[in-house]
Amino acid sequence: MEKVTLNVSGMSCGHCEKAVKGALMELAGVTNVVVHLSTGKVDVEFEPSKVSIDQLKEAIEEQGYDVA
Amino acid sequence: MEKVTLNVSGMSCGHCEKAVKGALMELAGVTNVVVHLSTGKVDVEFEPSKVSIDQLKEAIEEQGYDVA
Repeated sequence: MEKVTLNVSGMSCGHCEKAVKGALMELAGVTNVVVHLSTGKVDVEFEPSKVSIDQLKEAIEEQGYDVA
Repeated sequence: MEKVTLNVSGMSCGHCEKAVKGALMELAGVTNVVVHLSTGKVDVEFEPSKVSIDQLKEAIEEQGYDVA
């Protein structure tokens, strides 16, 4: 299990939080997601043998947010 | 048919817009809704014999937004 913190811009409300968290939790290998709206940071616990950080970023970008 | 413009605070993104528009359009008597995110104004066309302005405001407040 690994942890990564992604910096996401454009998340402004609880709906945004749910959209990002939901998209990440749908990925096989992601076991926990915590979204910090005020800072734009997203903590993700994942199994690197099952999912890559690039795939995490893509899932967020598909929801319409930018990942630094 | 009547038109009213409500001033709503806290709508910050497209998800908020959809939540408010969806809640209003579900009410019998509401025929059109336009949300202006940048100003917080919500234009509602409605049939006053079927739905009251107070009911419009309640529907928005139930989504978690304040109506002036």
